Amino acid sequence: MHTVEQMLETYPKDLGGIDRAKLIECIQACFECAQTCTACADACLSEDTVADLTKCIRANLDCADICTTTGSALSRHTGYDANVTRAFLEACATACKSCGDSCEEHASMHEHCRVCAEACRRCEQACRELITSLT
Amino acid sequence: MHTVEQMLETYPKDLGGIDRAKLIECIQACFECAQTCTACADACLSEDTVADLTKCIRANLDCADICTTTGSALSRHTGYDANVTRAFLEACATACKSCGDSCEEHASMHEHCRVCAEACRRCEQACRELITSLT
Amino acid sequence: MHTVEQMLETYPKDLGGIDRAKLIECIQACFECAQTCTACADACLSEDTVADLTKCIRANLDCADICTTTGSALSRHTGYDANVTRAFLEACATACKSCGDSCEEHASMHEHCRVCAEACRRCEQACRELITSLT
Amino acid sequence: MHTVEQMLETYPKDLGGIDRAKLIECIQACFECAQTCTACADACLSEDTVADLTKCIRANLDCADICTTTGSALSRHTGYDANVTRAFLEACATACKSCGDSCEEHASMHEHCRVCAEACRRCEQACRELITSLT
Repeated sequence: MHTVEQMLETYPKDLGGIDRAKLIECIQACFECAQTCTACADACLSEDTVADLTKCIRANLDCADICTTTGSALSRHTGYDANVTRAFLEACATACKSCGDSCEEHASMHEHCRVCAEACRRCEQACRELITSLT
Repeated sequence: MHTVEQMLETYPKDLGGIDRAKLIECIQACFECAQTCTACADACLSEDTVADLTKCIRANLDCADICTTTGSALSRHTGYDANVTRAFLEACATACKSCGDSCEEHASMHEHCRVCAEACRRCEQACRELITSLT
Repeated sequence: MHTVEQMLETYPKDLGGIDRAKLIECIQACFECAQTCTACADACLSEDTVADLTKCIRANLDCADICTTTGSALSRHTGYDANVTRAFLEACATACKSCGDSCEEHASMHEHCRVCAEACRRCEQACRELITSLT
Repeated sequence: MHTVEQMLETYPKDLGGIDRAKLIECIQACFECAQTCTACADACLSEDTVADLTKCIRANLDCADICTTTGSALSRHTGYDANVTRAFLEACATACKSCGDSCEEHASMHEHCRVCAEACRRCEQACRELITSLT
């Protein structure tokens, strides 16, 4: 989504001391992970072995929700509050870790879980790198 | 929303050791706060002094998003992960604190900010009480 | 959620010609239905017969999303656009009808589906009554 | 987001008669537009002329919500219901049209509104093309 970068470039005020490259990567990773987790929950639902995947589906749903919330909050810069941003990023990284672990368990059997685990890892890492860069 | 309680009562498996009364209160507070913050952001937008309320509007939008995410995650019990629940509750309490503070500053001038600040305080407290009760 | 009414009463500008009682009922029904559908999807997931409930779970997830979106849009009054409001209400009523039908099929076996079907019917009706009242 | 395509390819069951290329484009356009509208609402908030942009901000918020809901629903294939899909796409196209029109009015003054108007047009068109292809 090259529009993430365009919207940052056209923001009318100063963005503060935030690391712009890490911010772009994190916003993109959040929206990508939200979509992937939503799709993975549905793919798990359609598996014949769905009864073995219920924990994974639940993790996917939580992860999709917090990724959308975090990606949206990171897309706002007005009235920036580092405490709120940090708490959202921590919650998002925690959910991505949990969902990534859950999907990884099924990655060898279900390709959608493999793709989703990778999206969760990318998003978790992007959140953690952005947390580190926050001042 | 009496349906929150009904849905907990009809959940087919054990809910684990969670404090049911605190859980019900927290889910209700999250959905109430999400709606109130959404409405307060819009009411601020329609004030003639909107330029003075932009920080408050942004806090409202973040708070509405995390309240919906947290209220939804708390409505799921399958494959419960205390780490994820705790991180969401911490993020929600942090956003409610920030938004409550911001709305309180305008509470004497804008009734919608007064109502919203109270909803934020209730939700923050419900999150903190549920965190304390988590095992 | 008595705060729905309070936020309407404290909105600083005129609400236009909208039927206030029907609006309050519809906003409340949307948020109630969003929570109920989220909980019902999770309760279905935890049933031993989850493999027979996948269509119902999917309907629940779609319905929860559109109910949140519609309840949020109805909580905004600034720059009101009747075409957008009507399209959201139509989409919400359609999803509530589909989810209500799906849950009703399982209502005699699963109490959570019975409670959820009723929430869907209330929300569908509230949406249709608000559509009729729109000018 | 190349993961949109990967998740479709790894879906374990048949996707039905849906036009896969149009579906991919529409899911991507919905998530892109959700992020762009969220960012544009915030950029408008930070403009000194925010009082002239309140209608645009409101359109952005509605549009972001329905784009997330529609992009999520399109990411689910289990228990497909063409009536629900069509109603969501109609609501999304309607909101994108309204928001695109609103942003276009300010496109010559505010670059973020120009970028956002283009994202809204892409998403509106992707929704309309997918509607046409639905059987």
